[in-house]
Amino acid sequence: MRALLLDPRPVVHHDYREPARVPGESIVRVRMAGICGTDLELARGYMSFRGVPGHEFVGEVVDTESAALDGQRVVGEINAACGRCALCSEGLGRHCPNRTVLGIAGRDGAFAEFLRLPDENLIPLPDSVDDELGVLVEPLAAIYEIFEQTSLRRDHRIGVLGDGRLGALAAIVLRAEGYAATLAGHHREKLDHLATLGLQVELEDKLGSDFDTVIDCTGHSDGLNRALELVRPRGTVILKSTAKAGAALNLAQAVIDEITIVGSRCGRFAPAIDALASARIDPRPLVSAVFPLDEASAAFAAAARSPNFKVLLKP
Amino acid sequence: MRALLLDPRPVVHHDYREPARVPGESIVRVRMAGICGTDLELARGYMSFRGVPGHEFVGEVVDTESAALDGQRVVGEINAACGRCALCSEGLGRHCPNRTVLGIAGRDGAFAEFLRLPDENLIPLPDSVDDELGVLVEPLAAIYEIFEQTSLRRDHRIGVLGDGRLGALAAIVLRAEGYAATLAGHHREKLDHLATLGLQVELEDKLGSDFDTVIDCTGHSDGLNRALELVRPRGTVILKSTAKAGAALNLAQAVIDEITIVGSRCGRFAPAIDALASARIDPRPLVSAVFPLDEASAAFAAAARSPNFKVLLKP
Repeated sequence: MRALLLDPRPVVHHDYREPARVPGESIVRVRMAGICGTDLELARGYMSFRGVPGHEFVGEVVDTESAALDGQRVVGEINAACGRCALCSEGLGRHCPNRTVLGIAGRDGAFAEFLRLPDENLIPLPDSVDDELGVLVEPLAAIYEIFEQTSLRRDHRIGVLGDGRLGALAAIVLRAEGYAATLAGHHREKLDHLATLGLQVELEDKLGSDFDTVIDCTGHSDGLNRALELVRPRGTVILKSTAKAGAALNLAQAVIDEITIVGSRCGRFAPAIDALASARIDPRPLVSAVFPLDEASAAFAAAARSPNFKVLLKP
Repeated sequence: MRALLLDPRPVVHHDYREPARVPGESIVRVRMAGICGTDLELARGYMSFRGVPGHEFVGEVVDTESAALDGQRVVGEINAACGRCALCSEGLGRHCPNRTVLGIAGRDGAFAEFLRLPDENLIPLPDSVDDELGVLVEPLAAIYEIFEQTSLRRDHRIGVLGDGRLGALAAIVLRAEGYAATLAGHHREKLDHLATLGLQVELEDKLGSDFDTVIDCTGHSDGLNRALELVRPRGTVILKSTAKAGAALNLAQAVIDEITIVGSRCGRFAPAIDALASARIDPRPLVSAVFPLDEASAAFAAAARSPNFKVLLKP
């Protein structure tokens, strides 16, 4: 099959081995996949990943032992857990130490014609959510994860740092759910586009301070330093960036001001699917381009380029 | 009066100007004061502090407009807040941006014959808590602050990093309050002493991992890196160290594992006084030595030396 491989730069192969079905797992034909900041990091060597990247997708189940999944259009949770460890038994399979992660760790991903995932990871997508929107379920779930981990209040001042894909999704979700968020970034053109969606935006260097909560979606390791400057004493910083490089951080002020820093990654898919299916959120304006898989190199370049937000791949 | 001044090394002066009473503030004759890690940092230049350090004390109110305080033996909350800002109105005067901090920022401290604090900061000490124990109210309050900020559970595995003053107090409080904590450090002699108090201790390099909560009391900026290695996914790291130097931190793993990092500093005095007055905790074995104020240099040296824990100064 055709598949994009990282070695670490992205190259499309035409004779990559198709995944074979194993008990408890199904084969999915990929209909659409999304390029995420993590994919760009992987292509720069992050996590020393070798294989097929891609973890945001919509596909069709084409080989399965599950009658409920057969032929269904699905999205898939990316963490394939062991189901037996202490974390799995707490319902935290997303943190299973024995897990593989689709397109990120130990398991080929979605930038290919076919992928394989455990049956329990696959979730049928309502007809009202088309492929382009469905691809956004995974990153949207990562935003809804914030509500599961923290106690945001609707009278809180919330700052979102980073005018890229994840920051824009965060601002869209927060607004739809009734929270007062200001999205800040360095790219005037991107901010102008986001303002047309009704989001409150600000150039980063003009942003006020004393936010109750700051969500770091910059993708840069120094995002935390900036977030700590912007948050008020006893406030919360939510880290959504898994940047490779370490930053020199002086956390003494975070101790003095009793800041809480919350690392936040993947979330459950259900709230994100519900928000899309009910049209409570409409992040379609963030889809900047759709490339065929064969043009994956150009797609990666486009995904890294401002003012693009989300770039999709169609196998 | 006699007073220890940092410039930045500690020197005792014999003709330092006595503090004068101002409306709303009282003069306290210091009976006993304690040397804390922060004092040692200040003497190394931390926060560019110039003046009289010392923020842990027991004293006697000798000049006041408050009949309730006159002649009382007291301890004192160290943050002198403005009482008018948003944080003060939330009861968070400890974080008032206009505050002075006894012996740390903008206000002379307790390593002197007399000090001045706002009346509302002074809290009479029960007779059952003598001067040596009373000096420990302030650092104990910083430990009880952990319960105010986080939701520790008695079935949690808790690791305390650092076998110094603060780590030992944390382990004593956690044990007394029914929590299962292991105190880890690098000093065999200190750990042996703490084991005789009934604390569970371990050499740091033999410590297990997968702790639900790790409390960093190392006083070193790399304590956070070690804590992140020891905590389980979705676990909590509590930072009690305000070390001056910044550390190179790679927080990507903290994001992937969704760790919560809680900066934690000063606490309310009431829970600490109650624990001492009821003899629920007895940290007296941590008092290693009492020096006269005139021997403050030797006292600072002793406070920095293992296996000493708490060194006190008597003006």
